[in-house]
Amino acid sequence: MDPITSPRNPRVAAAAKLVRARERRRRGEMLLEGPHVVEAAVTAGVTLRSVFGLDGDSASRTLAARAGATWVPCTEEVLERLGATEHPRGPMAVGVIPDTAVGWRRDTLVADLRDPGNAGTLIRTAAAFGLDICFSSQAVDVWAPKILRAGAGAHFLTDVGTGLETVPDGVGTIATVVTGGAPPARAFERLDSGRVWAVMVGSEPHGLSPATVDSADVTVTIPMPGRTESLNAAVAASIVAYELSLWRSAVGSHSDGH
Amino acid sequence: MDPITSPRNPRVAAAAKLVRARERRRRGEMLLEGPHVVEAAVTAGVTLRSVFGLDGDSASRTLAARAGATWVPCTEEVLERLGATEHPRGPMAVGVIPDTAVGWRRDTLVADLRDPGNAGTLIRTAAAFGLDICFSSQAVDVWAPKILRAGAGAHFLTDVGTGLETVPDGVGTIATVVTGGAPPARAFERLDSGRVWAVMVGSEPHGLSPATVDSADVTVTIPMPGRTESLNAAVAASIVAYELSLWRSAVGSHSDGH
Repeated sequence: MDPITSPRNPRVAAAAKLVRARERRRRGEMLLEGPHVVEAAVTAGVTLRSVFGLDGDSASRTLAARAGATWVPCTEEVLERLGATEHPRGPMAVGVIPDTAVGWRRDTLVADLRDPGNAGTLIRTAAAFGLDICFSSQAVDVWAPKILRAGAGAHFLTDVGTGLETVPDGVGTIATVVTGGAPPARAFERLDSGRVWAVMVGSEPHGLSPATVDSADVTVTIPMPGRTESLNAAVAASIVAYELSLWRSAVGSHSDGH
Repeated sequence: MDPITSPRNPRVAAAAKLVRARERRRRGEMLLEGPHVVEAAVTAGVTLRSVFGLDGDSASRTLAARAGATWVPCTEEVLERLGATEHPRGPMAVGVIPDTAVGWRRDTLVADLRDPGNAGTLIRTAAAFGLDICFSSQAVDVWAPKILRAGAGAHFLTDVGTGLETVPDGVGTIATVVTGGAPPARAFERLDSGRVWAVMVGSEPHGLSPATVDSADVTVTIPMPGRTESLNAAVAASIVAYELSLWRSAVGSHSDGH
């Protein structure tokens, strides 16, 4: 196949449209950027339609072959049209958005984050600590290129749900609040290890709704001895996830069929 | 004063130039965005030259008066010219970059982060946990608008240093590594509480240099039971900072003259 040299090539234009949430929903496809994210998707068995890479980039071509996807050699100018960053590295890939949902079989982060960087960062945290993650209905579209990039491949290493209205009955709820909760390590000592637990975090600057906090089984607050009571929302959620993961490692699994 | 309506007004153009690092260094000034950051600067006694806000925005005008700065009413179009975000909220302010440095009198984060969002997020973490923070010479310019925004005012709540070559003699060093270190809580139990400790974190994807790790007093690794060994760099550093802060709260102060 001759390399594509024009950013206005129809195949390129169709891929570039996937930066729009509406287009992603309509086609059920997403745009993956960079070797790390594309490789994670291929390894997880995500269906890729096409892989764009620089003509002569054998690593990208091999990834395309592994994925059973169409290999599309192109110029740097074309990759720049597709990349959300200023200097995109290949490969870029068009993939089918997985039909994922969280199963509530293991501890789960429940996030209402709107910032794309924070949302992607928290998906990474969830995967690192062996948690699933579910976003509330108001939160961002997790398959957006910015969130996929910040997630660094973690979207394909743990269950990622969206559109959550309420946590299912039987799942324990932990609300993360800026003041008035117990320190996480102390609060978690008393948790029933036979239950699955959901760590709930709100977006900045307002946090969780009062109703969510009131109905939670446990409220936790990260002790902050400094001159401010403000952590980035993804950082705060990650610290609580870390503590929950330490606790879970100490007490053993619930009924982890994951 | 009549409101400025043109983004090409000389005063506006001069302020807008502060998005460039070279211009910030030459003039020793920075561009502050949003009520939270401007308020934090005023409260900390940072010298503001001018405060731009929508004509009729009395809160911004009051902030200008509190700071002893020139009040510059303007239109939304002008604020958009100054803001790095798409929909900037006023006020925007031109302020004098504080002559800060870390004093190594209390525990300090030493960061080699290049991503502006991560750098600002980590300054927030430092302020929340009562730590100073110092960036290495290769790291980003902490007074860039993006970093100030991600810092959410924390730049003015703790000591922020830049251009660090080496940690001073006598300061204990903790290297954060992806594998092979001790879990932070266990490692910190053995620390000498009479010393000041520096938590060192590298940038993604390479982390700290082997020489830095080899010469550290302590190496720590965050336990990650999930299917990936990858956390966002600011998140990883924040978790270690959190553990150090818990340990310091438990053992008491070094000789905190801060």
